This record gives sequence, structure tokens and C-alpha cells, in this order.
Amino acid sequence: MLLKPDPIAVEARQRVIYGDTDQMGVVYYANYLRFFELGRMEYFRARGGRYSELEAAGFALPVVHVEADYRASAKYEDVVVIRTTVTELRRASFGFSYEICREADGAVLCTGSTVHACLGKTGRPTSLPPPLAKLLAESP
Amino acid sequence: MLLKPDPIAVEARQRVIYGDTDQMGVVYYANYLRFFELGRMEYFRARGGRYSELEAAGFALPVVHVEADYRASAKYEDVVVIRTTVTELRRASFGFSYEICREADGAVLCTGSTVHACLGKTGRPTSLPPPLAKLLAESP
Amino acid sequence: MLLKPDPIAVEARQRVIYGDTDQMGVVYYANYLRFFELGRMEYFRARGGRYSELEAAGFALPVVHVEADYRASAKYEDVVVIRTTVTELRRASFGFSYEICREADGAVLCTGSTVHACLGKTGRPTSLPPPLAKLLAESP
Amino acid sequence: MLLKPDPIAVEARQRVIYGDTDQMGVVYYANYLRFFELGRMEYFRARGGRYSELEAAGFALPVVHVEADYRASAKYEDVVVIRTTVTELRRASFGFSYEICREADGAVLCTGSTVHACLGKTGRPTSLPPPLAKLLAESP
Repeated sequence: MLLKPDPIAVEARQRVIYGDTDQMGVVYYANYLRFFELGRMEYFRARGGRYSELEAAGFALPVVHVEADYRASAKYEDVVVIRTTVTELRRASFGFSYEICREADGAVLCTGSTVHACLGKTGRPTSLPPPLAKLLAESP
Repeated sequence: MLLKPDPIAVEARQRVIYGDTDQMGVVYYANYLRFFELGRMEYFRARGGRYSELEAAGFALPVVHVEADYRASAKYEDVVVIRTTVTELRRASFGFSYEICREADGAVLCTGSTVHACLGKTGRPTSLPPPLAKLLAESP
Repeated sequence: MLLKPDPIAVEARQRVIYGDTDQMGVVYYANYLRFFELGRMEYFRARGGRYSELEAAGFALPVVHVEADYRASAKYEDVVVIRTTVTELRRASFGFSYEICREADGAVLCTGSTVHACLGKTGRPTSLPPPLAKLLAESP
Repeated sequence: MLLKPDPIAVEARQRVIYGDTDQMGVVYYANYLRFFELGRMEYFRARGGRYSELEAAGFALPVVHVEADYRASAKYEDVVVIRTTVTELRRASFGFSYEICREADGAVLCTGSTVHACLGKTGRPTSLPPPLAKLLAESP
């Protein structure tokens, strides 16, 4: 694909609740994947898209790969800032990367990435619909 | 409805993981509702039903009311035993009650109940389908 | 206790993510208890308190009772508004009530309440510390 | 470290509940990390260890890296089998790999891995305590 990934990060914010933590007193590792999801939802919204509209049109963008590096701990009442960037843009898949910081001091808590397939109505891989590809690409 | 609720409790078991706990070092209060759901899934299964089959037939049994009393705390690695009983059986709704104990010492940790509506294909309240009503009723 | 509960509701907002939903296509019933918790955290913050400071001072305010009535469904990408009010104010316990609406149309999705015990350093019930009682009471 | 990682997989089983799924009708991607955690808890237990005892002794084994590949979908009521193997064994860190299959047909749903640091009482990296190292190593 000739399009280049959109290099501009979109920010989302969320305050950590008790239900996000575990008995180590910090956010449970799986819950960072919820933050990643919030990040990419806000990415779509910031670019004028709605993931729900893609779904309504019969597309699904399931995660086929995720990875995360945990560097420091988010704690109860911390506001985390999730910065989401497009990193890959292929015919039938694409990727996001995420950086999660603590708002109070800017400390990087977690970095990670997801790769998404694009599935059509039959549940089979399909080319990204043009509005999605455009949304994920660098503006000319 | 002339049917009486099935008075026999069905037991389910689950071991508490880290992800169930919060920073108080005990199971987060919302996660007991996951245990309730496990209890009623196992109730259906023990009575020869499958919730998934009801769904496939176009029915949904959403929770319209829940309550829970927290008496003692489940901790990491505890096995909890969930005892599920039918408490109400009406034309278009029914209820379960739950008792959650710690397997090791039998301590009662949480008791609660749910009320479920029966919705048909159009999403409107409808009579319980006969196989469901039978499954929830006292055997003659 | 002579103090009257604070009658003023505090609002919190949250956008529903995929991870909040279940296969019925709506927010899973247990996740409303996460919204309740967000509501009371924001209540404390709006009144100048921090739940984390109470914890640091050796107090815990565990939920001893919860109930919820589900009236309509929150869906993916909905913004929910959680209105939290103090409903009971006793020597060693207190209660919150919650109303969760969809921001877009104001529809009431869920109402509920929690009762909290006040536990001191030894884990036993204790009187609400005066700053907490004051925070929960109607201003004179 | 001269010890070789234990090559024998430990199996754990769990039935998928409604609360594990999302509106795509399959298990939400973050919830596989809960399955990973169940897998490693059962690994410790099968080898005669208890993660809770390590914690009581002042150690913590936080996840510093996770990755997962999603190959097929677990659905409501599926029993998933989690096979956990030790893959790395270093002085102050170690790794697990996971394979999650659907019990009914053996289909591989998800594979993944975690890397864990070993932290001592002060929260700083420390050598694995000998009982832990032994538990993770190939028996002679």
C-alpha cells in the first residue's frame, strides 16, 4: 500500500479506579489492554471515524497480536495518558502503538502495540475499506 | 404460574486469581457478580440446559435486578463455592439466589440474588419457553 | 448522628469501551459496579477528599451491600453519566445512591446503591473520622 | 544460571462465562491475560509452590513483558485448556509460555508468553530465591 501511517499521536485520559488494581496495589497487567483499547477508540474518534460504524458496515478489526512492556506502575487515582499512533498500514491489516504515561509526572508506565486484521462480512480477511485506510494514513 | 421453584442448589467452584483482587487484597466487589453468573451457568448445565441454546432460539434473560451482601473476603488462591438456587418463577421472569463460601473453612463470604426478565426475539418481555420453565421448576 | 447526608449529586462521565460489553452487545451487568465506584471516587474528589488519603490513614470503607436495577442498556461508545448522592450517614457506616444515564438522550440506564462500613486499622468497625463525616454531610 | 527451564507443561481449565466475552461474541482480548495468569498459578501449584507464600516472604514477580497471538476465538461456554511451560530461567527473571486450546476440538486459540522480574522486599530486582529457581527448573 502506498499510504504511509498517520504519524500523529492521539491522546486519551483515564483515572484509575480500585477495580483496575490488584493486590500488589497497582493496575493489573491485563487492564493495560483496556487502556490500549480506549486509546484506539479515541484515535478513531479524533480522526472523525467511529468503530461502531465500521461494525455496522459489516467489518471487524480483531486484535491478532498484542505486546506490552511494563516499566512502572499506575496506581489508584492516577490519571493515565494513552498516546496512540498508527505504526503499520497494509492491505488487510494495520497496527497501533501505545505509550501510557502518568499525567502527574509524565513517567512512562507501559508501552505496547496491537496488530489488527480487517475482516469482512463473511469473517474472512479483506482489504481495509477506503475510509478506514484514509483515516489511518498520513494526510497529504 | 403453578410451578414451584426448584429448591435444589447447584454448586460451582472457582479459584481466585490475582486479576480478581483489588488493592485491598481481596476480591473486588464487582467480581462477585461474575461468580453469580458462573453459578447460574452451572445451574443451567446441571439441569441439562444450555444458556447458549436459549440464545440461539432467540431468547435473552437479562439481569434486571441484582443485590449482594458482603460478609467476609475471598482472597487470592481461595477456592470459592457458589451455591445457586431458584427463588422465583413467574410467567415472564424468574430469580436466582446465591451463596458464596470459602471451600477451605466453609465461611460464607457473600450472599446475593438476581432477577431475570425473559425477552423474545423482538426484545420484548415474553413468557418463559416451556423447557426453561421446566428446568427451573421443582420436579414433580 | 445529627449530620444530614449531603443532598447534592456529583457527576462523573465515562465512555463505554468494547471491554465493558458482553456478547449481548451491551455493558455487562457487573461493570455497572465499576461505574458506581467511579461515581463515588469522583464524589470524594469533588468534596475535596481523596479515598487514597483515608486508606493511608488506616481506614477502609468496604462495600457491605450493593443493589442495582437495570432499566436500559449502555452500548459501546455511549458516554454514561453517573450521578452519586449520599443517602445514609451513620456513626460507622454510610450509603451512596447512583443514577446512570446515557449522555446522548438522558435515558436512565441503571440505578443502584451501596452501603459502606468504616473499618479502622485493626479491621474492625469504627466511627467515621470527622473529616469523612463532614465531607458526606450537608453543608450548614 | 546453570539450571534449565522445566520443559513439562502444566494444564489448567476454565469455562468461559458471559462476562469474559465482548460484543463481537468472543472472549475479549485482555481476558486471555487472565487465562495466562490462571495458567501460571496452576503451574506453581502443580510444582508444589504457592505464589502467595512467595509474596508472604517479601518477593513479587511482576510481569515486565507480555505478548499474545490470537488465532481463533473462544466462545461462551467453551472450556479452554491453558498449557503453561517455563521458557527462560535467569538469575533475576524468568519466562512462561502459554498455549490456550478449546477443549472440545483441540483448536489452538491463543499462544503467548510473559516475562517476570523477581523483586525483593525493597522492590528492587533480586535473585530468584532457591525454592523458586528449583521449582522452575528441569528436574535432574
